Amino acid sequence: MTRSDGRATNELRPIEMITNYTKHAEGSVLICVGDTKVICNATVEDRVPPFLRNSGKGWISAEYSMLPRATQERTMRESTKGKVTGRTMEIQRLIGRALRAVVDLEALGEKTIWIDCDVIQADGGTRTASITGAFVSMMLAFDKLVKSNKLKTYPVTDYLAATSVGILPEIGPVLDLYYVEDSTASVDMNIIMTGEGRFVELQGTGEEATFSREELNELLALGEQGVKELINIQKEVLLKEGIQFK
Amino acid sequence: MTRSDGRATNELRPIEMITNYTKHAEGSVLICVGDTKVICNATVEDRVPPFLRNSGKGWISAEYSMLPRATQERTMRESTKGKVTGRTMEIQRLIGRALRAVVDLEALGEKTIWIDCDVIQADGGTRTASITGAFVSMMLAFDKLVKSNKLKTYPVTDYLAATSVGILPEIGPVLDLYYVEDSTASVDMNIIMTGEGRFVELQGTGEEATFSREELNELLALGEQGVKELINIQKEVLLKEGIQFK
Amino acid sequence: MTRSDGRATNELRPIEMITNYTKHAEGSVLICVGDTKVICNATVEDRVPPFLRNSGKGWISAEYSMLPRATQERTMRESTKGKVTGRTMEIQRLIGRALRAVVDLEALGEKTIWIDCDVIQADGGTRTASITGAFVSMMLAFDKLVKSNKLKTYPVTDYLAATSVGILPEIGPVLDLYYVEDSTASVDMNIIMTGEGRFVELQGTGEEATFSREELNELLALGEQGVKELINIQKEVLLKEGIQFK
Amino acid sequence: MTRSDGRATNELRPIEMITNYTKHAEGSVLICVGDTKVICNATVEDRVPPFLRNSGKGWISAEYSMLPRATQERTMRESTKGKVTGRTMEIQRLIGRALRAVVDLEALGEKTIWIDCDVIQADGGTRTASITGAFVSMMLAFDKLVKSNKLKTYPVTDYLAATSVGILPEIGPVLDLYYVEDSTASVDMNIIMTGEGRFVELQGTGEEATFSREELNELLALGEQGVKELINIQKEVLLKEGIQFK
Amino acid sequence: MTRSDGRATNELRPIEMITNYTKHAEGSVLICVGDTKVICNATVEDRVPPFLRNSGKGWISAEYSMLPRATQERTMRESTKGKVTGRTMEIQRLIGRALRAVVDLEALGEKTIWIDCDVIQADGGTRTASITGAFVSMMLAFDKLVKSNKLKTYPVTDYLAATSVGILPEIGPVLDLYYVEDSTASVDMNIIMTGEGRFVELQGTGEEATFSREELNELLALGEQGVKELINIQKEVLLKEGIQFK
Amino acid sequence: MTRSDGRATNELRPIEMITNYTKHAEGSVLICVGDTKVICNATVEDRVPPFLRNSGKGWISAEYSMLPRATQERTMRESTKGKVTGRTMEIQRLIGRALRAVVDLEALGEKTIWIDCDVIQADGGTRTASITGAFVSMMLAFDKLVKSNKLKTYPVTDYLAATSVGILPEIGPVLDLYYVEDSTASVDMNIIMTGEGRFVELQGTGEEATFSREELNELLALGEQGVKELINIQKEVLLKEGIQFK
Repeated sequence: MTRSDGRATNELRPIEMITNYTKHAEGSVLICVGDTKVICNATVEDRVPPFLRNSGKGWISAEYSMLPRATQERTMRESTKGKVTGRTMEIQRLIGRALRAVVDLEALGEKTIWIDCDVIQADGGTRTASITGAFVSMMLAFDKLVKSNKLKTYPVTDYLAATSVGILPEIGPVLDLYYVEDSTASVDMNIIMTGEGRFVELQGTGEEATFSREELNELLALGEQGVKELINIQKEVLLKEGIQFK
Repeated sequence: MTRSDGRATNELRPIEMITNYTKHAEGSVLICVGDTKVICNATVEDRVPPFLRNSGKGWISAEYSMLPRATQERTMRESTKGKVTGRTMEIQRLIGRALRAVVDLEALGEKTIWIDCDVIQADGGTRTASITGAFVSMMLAFDKLVKSNKLKTYPVTDYLAATSVGILPEIGPVLDLYYVEDSTASVDMNIIMTGEGRFVELQGTGEEATFSREELNELLALGEQGVKELINIQKEVLLKEGIQFK
Repeated sequence: MTRSDGRATNELRPIEMITNYTKHAEGSVLICVGDTKVICNATVEDRVPPFLRNSGKGWISAEYSMLPRATQERTMRESTKGKVTGRTMEIQRLIGRALRAVVDLEALGEKTIWIDCDVIQADGGTRTASITGAFVSMMLAFDKLVKSNKLKTYPVTDYLAATSVGILPEIGPVLDLYYVEDSTASVDMNIIMTGEGRFVELQGTGEEATFSREELNELLALGEQGVKELINIQKEVLLKEGIQFK
Repeated sequence: MTRSDGRATNELRPIEMITNYTKHAEGSVLICVGDTKVICNATVEDRVPPFLRNSGKGWISAEYSMLPRATQERTMRESTKGKVTGRTMEIQRLIGRALRAVVDLEALGEKTIWIDCDVIQADGGTRTASITGAFVSMMLAFDKLVKSNKLKTYPVTDYLAATSVGILPEIGPVLDLYYVEDSTASVDMNIIMTGEGRFVELQGTGEEATFSREELNELLALGEQGVKELINIQKEVLLKEGIQFK
Repeated sequence: MTRSDGRATNELRPIEMITNYTKHAEGSVLICVGDTKVICNATVEDRVPPFLRNSGKGWISAEYSMLPRATQERTMRESTKGKVTGRTMEIQRLIGRALRAVVDLEALGEKTIWIDCDVIQADGGTRTASITGAFVSMMLAFDKLVKSNKLKTYPVTDYLAATSVGILPEIGPVLDLYYVEDSTASVDMNIIMTGEGRFVELQGTGEEATFSREELNELLALGEQGVKELINIQKEVLLKEGIQFK
Repeated sequence: MTRSDGRATNELRPIEMITNYTKHAEGSVLICVGDTKVICNATVEDRVPPFLRNSGKGWISAEYSMLPRATQERTMRESTKGKVTGRTMEIQRLIGRALRAVVDLEALGEKTIWIDCDVIQADGGTRTASITGAFVSMMLAFDKLVKSNKLKTYPVTDYLAATSVGILPEIGPVLDLYYVEDSTASVDMNIIMTGEGRFVELQGTGEEATFSREELNELLALGEQGVKELINIQKEVLLKEGIQFK
């Protein structure tokens, strides 16, 4: 049996990243992973949260949201509800934590980089697309700081990208699930890795199901390959903006 | 003295409307009024608010939001604050009220059309751009209902568009203020009109200033002309989608 | 056809303003416009909102509320709901903005005048009654500041009052709508003007209806006349308190 | 030493109750206890809270609020804060509980009486004034129900009124404390009693102080006398409205 | 007729207080009053609320909560509801106020003692058990401050304990009601007293009922006896920890 | 170098589970993992969330909270803040999801099992201790349902337990981190597994750090061993309550 959109089990959806997508943000990217589209905007703020004041260290803080009609059914706005859902909190904490793993917060100094990931169209994998796009928007913002002599060098230790893998009934382990697959997968795993192939975060969940050690190994292999391809695309996109490191 | 972006006092910014901008919404438009860019998505829901149940009438409900970095300085998300600001409430009530003025709610029947206006880039006039784009997205959604035989005809009595006019120091009355002008104008007026040139809503405010009856007349004349041009563009855009009425 | 309460189309309801209505506020007025009764209290505070600190400028901030049983049906308290409704926000923003248009904020200096408009009985036109009463309560507070040498002169450029006009089916344009009329009017317009007859704010809304330029002109004429009468009453009331200017 | 306003230790402030103070409420009273002024409005609603549905029993629910400038310093609105304070909750729970002690909820049937106590001027004793006024407004509402044949008889077992007593430094136990006394009293006690002289609620608090059994006895004697006088006034006021029972 | 659990009308339930129940708090007690079990933790904080800054005085602040399944039916968490109920607010204000009546806030100096009362199992009388346990946990925290030379002496003027009394149908006045009795009592009174037998707080409520002066006297006698016994137990418990005063 | 508490790298802390810890809950366990102590209460409710009504399926819903002084520094209550933090939401979603992976929701039928995990003392690993204890409390509740003939058999497919593993500087991979270790670990991983050794959830996070595939393999081995030991203890504890399956 083959995947419903015809992809090979180890094949990513088409990836596109449009840099400088909006004009006000210090770094701005529209990332498209298939039909999943996320605006990733990076903002530089010259202060840090209270717990870091006078520490000499900076901070990366992420927020995530979906337009109400990014989804097939309209979702009520969190501002209307008056509170951020648990799902949103989980995702924005994840994005911030992942980026901080490759940023040298001391080299950044007492600045906060706000990363806003706004999903304008969702088709599965919005959190991993957000991380992959957020890294590029953050690099664009760092580049502005370097060019204006506010930083000497990119305060970054490595590239960073993310993808999802999962186990489909009758098909088995696959890379980069889109919405239709996501809703039938028995296991869903998000893998965030660096350019050197080290893990930053691993979240695997059985959806009313469980998985064996052998299945875990297969999923990890698919994820490693997918992240490697995504980082190659990031390198190309950043190079066109004159940004190169490592 | 001339306007800082070189336009004539009675000249609109370049207008663009991209239809079917996102794939899930029943009607979707990206409207660009100069650098102001708003995604207007229309959703059809098969029920009405409690006060209309069993009335045979439908409803139009609008929501408005700005991405945090739509603006020059990052704005905190309303979902994070835990409440919708007064400004947002005013705008979304205005958009809904304006659209309802040209919709035959009985012909619509017990359905709600949700209009989501999400500003991805702001450069002045976001509320009037939202109304102008929202009308088109609503027509696209009505067209789907007509084509699937859920409505016999467009439940709409006329076209609807909006623009802003204002009084600039040393220049006087001008049409379609962009951000730089907006922040220095002594008077700011939003004008919402129909295809037949009737007023739907008029909101004129002296910003720590006042205006005379003569100035009011000049502002109204500019607004009438601007709305007429916007409605001509709406007609073209809708015609390309095969939608024609009146 | 005549109005249901027997008034001429250009006739205000009976107006009464009781000064020093409560004892703690620096300025206190009970304004009665027919059966609409609003307590307008002005408070002087020796500090300004953060955005004005060290600017040398003062601020006018208004809040508006209705007692739960000011209306025919009991309305739930906003404190119980846990949030201020959009309607309330719109009104209190309007009151503050209108007053600021006739106040010289630099002459006021770094003080905030809080205006609390609490409707104890509602019969249409609560927002315009609030503005008309609020101006008088603010003048009473300014008078205390002048008499105690905290201000040299009233930091005010002109008188300010407001009324509503509208279009009734079978009757046409009328001045100062009461509740029964308000709920059947096809067009509803609030007009806020100064003693010199200049506009401060103009808000005209078609309620699922529209209006022509000719109708607009008739409405403006009625409003201008109504505001002139209200300002004459304000002058008398203030004169009895020994307050005169212009 | 004598009280700062010249009253005897067992003397109430002047009491006034204006019935039918607002026009929409089924029962409306303005109660003045000295300079403390509270609007008490009673609303009849034809349903009960969920826990009483189909029980055949009714309910009395009270809400309490102060205008922001009822007090010497302006108090922030609870609607603006987004939550009701602990003090307000305590008071409104107390008012409701006290009234329910003299109401035959089964005779009332499945109705809710909402009691809104809105303090327009505060000078100490707002909660006891609220209870005393609330009882009268509730009787006015019951009278409407009886006159329109929705009730056969007043569903009330006795009169109800409340006052405060306290211990002042250098003076000792006194009746009906006003604000100046309230803020210096070492003990503060609210006493709610029926026409027959039975206790409904007793709340005595040492304010960073304690009191002996002898002091308690003196306080109770003062309170009993004060409530008796208040109930006599209630009887007169109700009689003028044609309401008599017991 | 006898009480349903066989106790005499003037008999407390078995009392147990386990000191140092949790390891992080400066003072920690698990108090068991029959099946009612409350963890009382005292925290020392080196600052005071804004209204006491630079006053030289300290503060005692209490919070109270019940585990969702402390009760027979599961109660929804207040954190999930997003607000603290009126009942909780009343209780935590009561606990703080009662403790402050026996603390010398000036001797304490600019410190806040936080008292957290968390009910892990409820069987009636949770607020009075909380106060009795809170006093002991507060003394343990004071003892740490004395032993570490941060205080010279216990800043406390007397012991403090609380119990409930009530009137049961067919039985009459009884001491220390448990849940089954609580829910049938016509009168419910909480009595908080000091070691010297002075009243700190008295709250008596008729539950849709009233009570006479004679009944009040009987209730007070029961309460005085109960508190005396509780304070004797507190003295023993504190003595085992080497704490003795008065 | 050895661990600061002297344990071997693959050694769990002492484990204790006290069943029937509180009397009202259908299932109640106090789990102690070293100094981490969590009350896990299971409640049976005879209805399901809206999305499952008439589906024939049941639901498991978990809530998690910490007493304010469970931690070294006092933490503000979430009820006082008025919202649940992101961390709490993440944990309670995790507990519910994990339990559902081993429950046959169709066999359960239209019931909700509420799992309340309240941490009374925290010393690292509160979320994994909660899961391990929650499984036992859920089994106790199921046992009541079976014994009262409301279920034919335990609707559970396997045992479930959780532990944490991590990488310590200078020591390397270790099992079951306590607080002191937790705060210095560069990698932190929670592992949830079944009695058959299958994965339910895997969450590994580099704390401003990353980890290699080899390190991942070592962590997984430690976790597998730890969970196996925990499940053996669960079996013993349940057997004493007469509960045996598989």
